[in-house]
Amino acid sequence: MSSSRAKLPFTVHAVDTGSHARRGTLLTQHGPVETPTFMAVGTRATVTGLTPQDLAHVGTQVVLGNTYHLLLRPGPELFRRVGGIHKFMQWDGPVLTDSGGYQIFSLPAQRLITEKGARFKSYVDQSTHMLSPERSIEMQTALGSDIMMVLDVCLDSTSTKEEMRSAMERTHRWALRSLAARTNDAQALFAITQGGIDRELRAESAAFLTQHPFDGFAIGGLAVGDGRSEREDMTHFAADLLPKDRPRYLMGVGTPPDLLHAILAGVDMFDCIIPTHLAWQGTAFTSTGRVRVTRSVNKTADIPLDDECTCNTCRQFSRSYLHHLMKCSEPLGPRLLSIHNLFYYHALMAEARREIASGTYAAWARRKLDAMDRHEHAPRHAEKEAAP
Amino acid sequence: MSSSRAKLPFTVHAVDTGSHARRGTLLTQHGPVETPTFMAVGTRATVTGLTPQDLAHVGTQVVLGNTYHLLLRPGPELFRRVGGIHKFMQWDGPVLTDSGGYQIFSLPAQRLITEKGARFKSYVDQSTHMLSPERSIEMQTALGSDIMMVLDVCLDSTSTKEEMRSAMERTHRWALRSLAARTNDAQALFAITQGGIDRELRAESAAFLTQHPFDGFAIGGLAVGDGRSEREDMTHFAADLLPKDRPRYLMGVGTPPDLLHAILAGVDMFDCIIPTHLAWQGTAFTSTGRVRVTRSVNKTADIPLDDECTCNTCRQFSRSYLHHLMKCSEPLGPRLLSIHNLFYYHALMAEARREIASGTYAAWARRKLDAMDRHEHAPRHAEKEAAP
Repeated sequence: MSSSRAKLPFTVHAVDTGSHARRGTLLTQHGPVETPTFMAVGTRATVTGLTPQDLAHVGTQVVLGNTYHLLLRPGPELFRRVGGIHKFMQWDGPVLTDSGGYQIFSLPAQRLITEKGARFKSYVDQSTHMLSPERSIEMQTALGSDIMMVLDVCLDSTSTKEEMRSAMERTHRWALRSLAARTNDAQALFAITQGGIDRELRAESAAFLTQHPFDGFAIGGLAVGDGRSEREDMTHFAADLLPKDRPRYLMGVGTPPDLLHAILAGVDMFDCIIPTHLAWQGTAFTSTGRVRVTRSVNKTADIPLDDECTCNTCRQFSRSYLHHLMKCSEPLGPRLLSIHNLFYYHALMAEARREIASGTYAAWARRKLDAMDRHEHAPRHAEKEAAP
Repeated sequence: MSSSRAKLPFTVHAVDTGSHARRGTLLTQHGPVETPTFMAVGTRATVTGLTPQDLAHVGTQVVLGNTYHLLLRPGPELFRRVGGIHKFMQWDGPVLTDSGGYQIFSLPAQRLITEKGARFKSYVDQSTHMLSPERSIEMQTALGSDIMMVLDVCLDSTSTKEEMRSAMERTHRWALRSLAARTNDAQALFAITQGGIDRELRAESAAFLTQHPFDGFAIGGLAVGDGRSEREDMTHFAADLLPKDRPRYLMGVGTPPDLLHAILAGVDMFDCIIPTHLAWQGTAFTSTGRVRVTRSVNKTADIPLDDECTCNTCRQFSRSYLHHLMKCSEPLGPRLLSIHNLFYYHALMAEARREIASGTYAAWARRKLDAMDRHEHAPRHAEKEAAP
């Protein structure tokens, strides 16, 4: 049982001149993390298709593992036996583990959520499991992640205020149970603020959770649903409620513009499946907008995905080859696109960090967002240029 | 049109004391190939899931591309535009292209084979194509492979002698048309001897084809069907009929024991989908026999696939992690197993080359084959050892 903070030094080196954007370093048990940072999603102890060497190349600092999926397969006993997720997947950098709260929320009807926790059937072998705050911490302890997340209650954005309040209050009780259940002080624990897009609830959630010795604070419930501007406003509001000396993590967000906006609000950490998910669908992020590699114009495009990019994919392969691989369903295609997209995300974060350090982030982000917006509204621009 | 050999110097450095095994070097336009060699199958201009860097790591010397598949997608025009298969897939080592003969033979009913060639429907877009000896050479010229293969007529082993003779004679006529169709003397061209397991036909085929200035000779039709010992006997017989100063290529063969046997017969080159195909099914070749990674005994096996292996997979990951990846259908699993299996095949060939150079191949191969045979008859041996 633990009632004080774990050792997770967080230093803010610089705050932007025209925004709340901040440049920091988070010192985990597996090394430093420069913030703002984007964490690569490695749900099942693998960032799909990539080796730890690939992750080092693209600039991944933190890998995110998922307690729910890893609980079901291969299970906590194996992690205890092999000595944790780092050793298992041979990633010696920092790991953050999600608690499983979002996956339980996303499950179909086969789950029962009570004050104790969530009871559900395994998609692997139909066995019944109970995921409680204590059980989630126990699993995350077995995983040996550098940063653990509390189990929270997620709701969709159509819920009533009473439902939202009730879920939030349970999230708070579960957060305290998670804190009490921590047995390894070397593992940091983040709380998750909830409250949907209701300012009163958001304020209440932050006020409650920040009284307790969590090592960082996440903003939950703003990854999907509602309008984009509503989510952005709420991100600013929710981030402002959090202590300046602790890292802030906006869960499950998002596109490159989403990240730039949230950094303006003072968010330090992100995760999202978008860069890898879109890679498997054949879409790449480039300096001139999104490129759908499978479009026929790319069949003969003997040019890199992005001639401003220095990733191994862009330095070595043509759009034409990537088009061919995707058309043939060859797994090298998604692998090469995942490398590019993660490189793009990490490079964007590195650029953001430099701009914050120079105090020029706000102006830079506005220019960058304008350019992204132009590309968004001329989505074929980049690909037209590729035509012979 | 060409009637003399291309420049494909082949030097035999050593012949084994107790067998026909030979150690040689084949000098292609893209560098030397040490023989005996196993060529990695890269059907669609990609060895499934692997980058050229991965291929360099595992020790691949030659990549095999397939004319039939690449003719249909992305097509010859693209290869002419980008300057060939090496540039397209960014592999600067030697490439051999198969002619498409075997694929046409394997096609379902939708094909018509005449003296001119084979007419068939594309599996990509249902368009109709004619693959003739001339068209195959034209496509292989566009691919710019270091070694081209003639289009041949393949039959299954249940054909009558008259059918086999007729197919063989057409194969001979097609071989001469292929030779006449070659426009780029920098690309070597191999003939394919046929005749099934009939010694008279095999002898006739070799006698006919070796009169002509082919750069090497393949043994076709011995990859599948008939008994193993029958195919082995025929490999010896067929290899003996070929000139000593030209490379011999046994097409589509095979398992590690198949390769060791064929090397005894004086075969220099091999290709087979087995190492990569089995990798995608979760099976690895190891020094103690085949390991089926998905077996439950491997779930907790915190040991390498093969502790005698120095490939990146064995140096870095446990059977337990590979088991997890395969069980989750995570594409990193087949990628890591492909790396291991190709490394195993290439290391086996390197060892064979060293033994030939020392004149000790026959004795070594016999010991190795005995050991493989023991593993085959105790298939769970390696995995039992892995149990905790």
